[in-house]
Amino acid sequence: MLDILRRIVQEVSSATDLSEALKLVVARIRAAMNTEVCSVYLFDPESKRYVLMATEGLKQEAVGRVSLSSSQGLVGLVGSREEPINVDNAPTHPRFHFLSETGEDPFLSFLGVPIIHHKRLMGVMVVQQRDSRQFDESEEAFLVTMSAQLAGVIAHAEATGNILDIPSATNERKKGTRFNGAPGAPGVGLGQAFVLSPAADLSGVVDKEAESVDDEIARFDLALEAAREEIRILGEKLSSELRPEEMALFDVYLNMLDDHALGAEVKVRIRDGNWAQGALRQVVMQYVGHFQLMEDVYLRERATDIIDLGTRILAHLQGSDAHAQEYDFPDNTILVSEELTPAMLGEVPPAKLRGLVSVKGSSNSHVAILARAMGIPTVMGVVDVPYAQLHGLELIVDGYRGQIFSSPNDELREQYQAIFDEEQALQKDLQVLRDKPAETLDGHRIPLWVNTGLITDAVRSLERGAEGVGLYRTEVPFMMKDRFPSESEQQKIYRQQLDTFAPNPVTMRTLDIGGDKALTYFPISEANPFLGWRGIRVTLDHPEIFLVQIRAMLKASEGLNNLRIMLPMITSVSEVDEALHLIYRAHAEVLEEGFDVEMPQVGVMIEVPAAVYQIRELGQRVDFLSVGSNDLTQYLLAVDRNNPRVADLYQAFHPAVLNALKMIADVSHEIGKPVSVCGELAGNPLGAVLLMAMGYDMLSMNATNLPKVKSVIRGINLEWANQLLTEVLKIESAPVITATLQLSLEKAGFGRIIGPGRN
Amino acid sequence: MLDILRRIVQEVSSATDLSEALKLVVARIRAAMNTEVCSVYLFDPESKRYVLMATEGLKQEAVGRVSLSSSQGLVGLVGSREEPINVDNAPTHPRFHFLSETGEDPFLSFLGVPIIHHKRLMGVMVVQQRDSRQFDESEEAFLVTMSAQLAGVIAHAEATGNILDIPSATNERKKGTRFNGAPGAPGVGLGQAFVLSPAADLSGVVDKEAESVDDEIARFDLALEAAREEIRILGEKLSSELRPEEMALFDVYLNMLDDHALGAEVKVRIRDGNWAQGALRQVVMQYVGHFQLMEDVYLRERATDIIDLGTRILAHLQGSDAHAQEYDFPDNTILVSEELTPAMLGEVPPAKLRGLVSVKGSSNSHVAILARAMGIPTVMGVVDVPYAQLHGLELIVDGYRGQIFSSPNDELREQYQAIFDEEQALQKDLQVLRDKPAETLDGHRIPLWVNTGLITDAVRSLERGAEGVGLYRTEVPFMMKDRFPSESEQQKIYRQQLDTFAPNPVTMRTLDIGGDKALTYFPISEANPFLGWRGIRVTLDHPEIFLVQIRAMLKASEGLNNLRIMLPMITSVSEVDEALHLIYRAHAEVLEEGFDVEMPQVGVMIEVPAAVYQIRELGQRVDFLSVGSNDLTQYLLAVDRNNPRVADLYQAFHPAVLNALKMIADVSHEIGKPVSVCGELAGNPLGAVLLMAMGYDMLSMNATNLPKVKSVIRGINLEWANQLLTEVLKIESAPVITATLQLSLEKAGFGRIIGPGRN
Repeated sequence: MLDILRRIVQEVSSATDLSEALKLVVARIRAAMNTEVCSVYLFDPESKRYVLMATEGLKQEAVGRVSLSSSQGLVGLVGSREEPINVDNAPTHPRFHFLSETGEDPFLSFLGVPIIHHKRLMGVMVVQQRDSRQFDESEEAFLVTMSAQLAGVIAHAEATGNILDIPSATNERKKGTRFNGAPGAPGVGLGQAFVLSPAADLSGVVDKEAESVDDEIARFDLALEAAREEIRILGEKLSSELRPEEMALFDVYLNMLDDHALGAEVKVRIRDGNWAQGALRQVVMQYVGHFQLMEDVYLRERATDIIDLGTRILAHLQGSDAHAQEYDFPDNTILVSEELTPAMLGEVPPAKLRGLVSVKGSSNSHVAILARAMGIPTVMGVVDVPYAQLHGLELIVDGYRGQIFSSPNDELREQYQAIFDEEQALQKDLQVLRDKPAETLDGHRIPLWVNTGLITDAVRSLERGAEGVGLYRTEVPFMMKDRFPSESEQQKIYRQQLDTFAPNPVTMRTLDIGGDKALTYFPISEANPFLGWRGIRVTLDHPEIFLVQIRAMLKASEGLNNLRIMLPMITSVSEVDEALHLIYRAHAEVLEEGFDVEMPQVGVMIEVPAAVYQIRELGQRVDFLSVGSNDLTQYLLAVDRNNPRVADLYQAFHPAVLNALKMIADVSHEIGKPVSVCGELAGNPLGAVLLMAMGYDMLSMNATNLPKVKSVIRGINLEWANQLLTEVLKIESAPVITATLQLSLEKAGFGRIIGPGRN
Repeated sequence: MLDILRRIVQEVSSATDLSEALKLVVARIRAAMNTEVCSVYLFDPESKRYVLMATEGLKQEAVGRVSLSSSQGLVGLVGSREEPINVDNAPTHPRFHFLSETGEDPFLSFLGVPIIHHKRLMGVMVVQQRDSRQFDESEEAFLVTMSAQLAGVIAHAEATGNILDIPSATNERKKGTRFNGAPGAPGVGLGQAFVLSPAADLSGVVDKEAESVDDEIARFDLALEAAREEIRILGEKLSSELRPEEMALFDVYLNMLDDHALGAEVKVRIRDGNWAQGALRQVVMQYVGHFQLMEDVYLRERATDIIDLGTRILAHLQGSDAHAQEYDFPDNTILVSEELTPAMLGEVPPAKLRGLVSVKGSSNSHVAILARAMGIPTVMGVVDVPYAQLHGLELIVDGYRGQIFSSPNDELREQYQAIFDEEQALQKDLQVLRDKPAETLDGHRIPLWVNTGLITDAVRSLERGAEGVGLYRTEVPFMMKDRFPSESEQQKIYRQQLDTFAPNPVTMRTLDIGGDKALTYFPISEANPFLGWRGIRVTLDHPEIFLVQIRAMLKASEGLNNLRIMLPMITSVSEVDEALHLIYRAHAEVLEEGFDVEMPQVGVMIEVPAAVYQIRELGQRVDFLSVGSNDLTQYLLAVDRNNPRVADLYQAFHPAVLNALKMIADVSHEIGKPVSVCGELAGNPLGAVLLMAMGYDMLSMNATNLPKVKSVIRGINLEWANQLLTEVLKIESAPVITATLQLSLEKAGFGRIIGPGRN
């Protein structure tokens, strides 16, 4: 049973459009259940009708033509009740509605189950049978299980269909297809998608018309020969290490590369007009699909051999391409890749780059950190997008909400163009604020600092009037190496940061790896990395790494003395005690070595919910507190915001989050310790107003948002912010709080800054 | 660089004992760094000296003989500073200590780095060079990176060495080697390890002396022939589907199975005395290791082919074994497996089973749920144990702390035997409490309910005097099928639970999948499942599944009306509103169908930290609240307690947890709603006392712990509990709180119940 289920899901997943997917669904389910009819009706939200989209057993000519309203027939009943309906004699049911066009008259028994994806009723799946008998329990349960698993696949196929503008009953709206990811870097970008494949990644190859069939065939032949040569050489090199029977493997693969096998098929496709890379991908994927459907586990896994062969050829194809031509990026490039790397980013001339989209990764990926430093709107982790098919399409990147839209209609394009233009104008207007203080109309001053990771950040931050660094992510230089940087390497990097901002303070967070921040040379593999070995937990387990870093920081601050050290992921007081002990030790050693360095201020990050309950105990041990609002929100709400299935549940203005933030500020002040926020909430004008009212002493944000926040603060009274805070703390639901904040700031004249779709 | 790193780690990981591992370390690092000497000194905690354990470049005869005290030499300095020391002319360094036995006189430059694993200094890694020159930055950084990654591998090899009692400088203590996992089912078990391999899992095969070499060879020949036949048939069946060049693959594999290749080597090992399965594993793993070390990605992946072939043969070997003989379990079996399944549990006669150990899985795995119902001490997720080597060894299972000890010394064995005996006696003594109420000496009564999942639980619970079910895990019946159970199937199962306890209430939690609870037929794959799509988040996205379950519950309660419905993973008020809406709808439908069912009480689980801040808003919407203290603790502390790297940070008595629990109870009472706890804290006598003092209205726990909790409650005054609560709420550290609680209860005369190592 499980096997059948898995195979159907896999087969349907590899269908290239909705219609093919649905055809497979009805054919496979009818066969698996050994029933006479299987049909899928999809709900069309425009017409509010269930349209027969695929059937096996009813008349094919009815597909796409026959439909039922939501109050009609048993199908309508299944949909409105969102429950299975299982009847032995459908025509006698009061809700039965006869559809003559389908030829369903001979079928008496009826079992219908709803297809629901993320709360949305997508349609109804029906099986029918001539005999008058109820489908039994296991049949009903099978269809329910099937439908629950296929709902996502159908939703995906529908979205893909929309992208390619395949006309269907359900996608005539053409509003542009939206795909959700996670915000990577703020801002809005409009442009044309350019899909870049990593070195030799077969599945990322796009279809493209061959400019010259002969050239492509020649290119393919060269690549084929090169791959063959490679395997031959490999074989020879290993002939002493391998046994004859193992060596025979090479012959098998050399034969597969032969002109009569895989090679011949690729050439057929090239002659049909595809370029060599696309043709290769098509043939290899077809082979792979073929193998993957086999019953035998062993043969299913042979699919990887074929992929490997294909990848070898592709590498040669791409190698030759790279030499032959530079990429021809459009003037408004939205760079799209399965997994964007900093190297790819470097391929595009900066003047042409409007946005970035990565299928994998999160806002903590290296490329997202770079994008924020460079100010390029970015969306990460758009796992559901069929990215290879986006190439050349018009695309909108919404880096605020973490969404992209493909092939937008005029309305949507205009809307986002307006946001983009407004942003540009606003940034220009806000430049005059650079040297003015962040002070309310009634004279309350709140320092605005920045979050940095690269030296680029630092330069941009100073341009925008930052008064200090609230969070310097020391893991960024660690992520750019293939081994731990040595003490003196670290010292140089830290010195540069401290020097650039001196005499303003720079808050350096000690190494914060784990979670979604990985070092290639220190891999950590866990079932729940966000609840695992990360931040201070790693460095206290490896004092040798922690001590080297602290010593480097201390030495780097000699003569500047603007260093502040901040400890991430603190959960218990004992962790602070241990870390302080090590810091004192490093300080003593550095003095011993002859450096003249003051003991820096040390602070604790409040990002684990447990720390919220121990502000007093933690605060008494250190010089300052700083709230990491992103992680704190994730833990309070138990939501990984990089996970698109639950990203909607990540609510920055959830009442629990606001309550916790208020409590942190109140207790910090009771014990007389300065407290700041260095998460994204601080860079959101709506959030900044609330945080100021709560009494936070400093806000740290990315440089892009700093002028906006300053502008709002300079335009309001603290008194007014206090009232707003009191009001929202009484509200019990996050969406209502967000709406209230937006409305209030619009009324106060900040519509331009907090405008729809921004922040 | 990364490649070298990965290969060294991989190679060292596959070493079978500490000495081999260290030999590999020094050889590979010396080669990679192109240096003249590489040595490892391990710290021996008994003698407090650094012992030279392996070297390349110094005299081999010094290994195991030469040692340094912690204040001696540069090695001692690296260890005490926990930092790299890099000097160009070691003999001139004030801390230099000359060891003539090693022959190190010609080496001037010295670089030493500490080896630290989980805060524990394990030793020092040293490279030396003839020339007087400082090792450069990248060399220093490479050695630091290498050491950080190898520390875990060395720790593992050391533990494994201890198991096998290989004499070495560092393991002469022989206190029994401890391995950490997660508690699966409470209790303590002593016995002999019996390692059970899943059907055809090569890596799980143990070495065993062949009873008869000839029989084993005959058995192996049969299996080999059967596997060959299988592949031949497979090939024939597929000959129409496959191309000739693909078919050639089969010939290659048939040749590999030939007597002259793999087969011959296995037979050599059998003749050396190993049984067929063990010999097969050895040969296959050697082949695999060979392939995995190859530079070429393609060839590295060929390792899977070899494993597949080996597994095919093994399946036939085990098939023949299964027919030929029953397992011969010792009378005090501790069942060990890589991944225990309920089926394996069924293999052992219950009278012989003393404990369970599973390398994979968590306390929410199906087998752990079964173990709790059957009262078998169980430890899950012991990821670091070389489980195949445990076979036949003496083992202690501590299901309270989630630890196992192999080859314990007399002291440890006596200690645990005493705990075991005491437990048995206690359980017997406590039976008299069955029909007595849980009431303090000063007359405060607190109902004790149970957590169930199987009908076995229910029966055992009634025997122990449970007054109701505080948590019935409805996902358990879902986990036992290969598709969603139908409405009527669910109705039958729920009816049985409700009926068994009637007229006492049964609290059914709606389907709580996701996290670490997976359904094979509805797979959810996420980077952080605990922060992902789970509990109510799944069922609100799939109302068709939720509605069917609620209808089944309602129908099952007809005539009994002792049903309470509980909603898991509530994060926002809107989720409660949506769920209530669906429950009302299901109720109306069920009435419409003619059932006579009252609307049940509905409650919310408080397990997401955000819910703690919204007790008022949530409580006003429902009839009762129930705290899931396990998940709440995990989220508050940001710790996945199934992850051994951070399991120590999971502290049930963390001050933040106690504060949150107090707040929940206080606010619930302010709004007049009953509140209970259904996590493990309620079943821990120390926790139960605190929860009662906080004012919780009911405690729900596993049946095993119920008599103990009742006994403590019947022996104290509420007033005394209140004082204890006030006292511990002032303490800022979890270990101090735990110690205070233990001491207070011991003083109050409950030493026997909360005795060391139990609860």
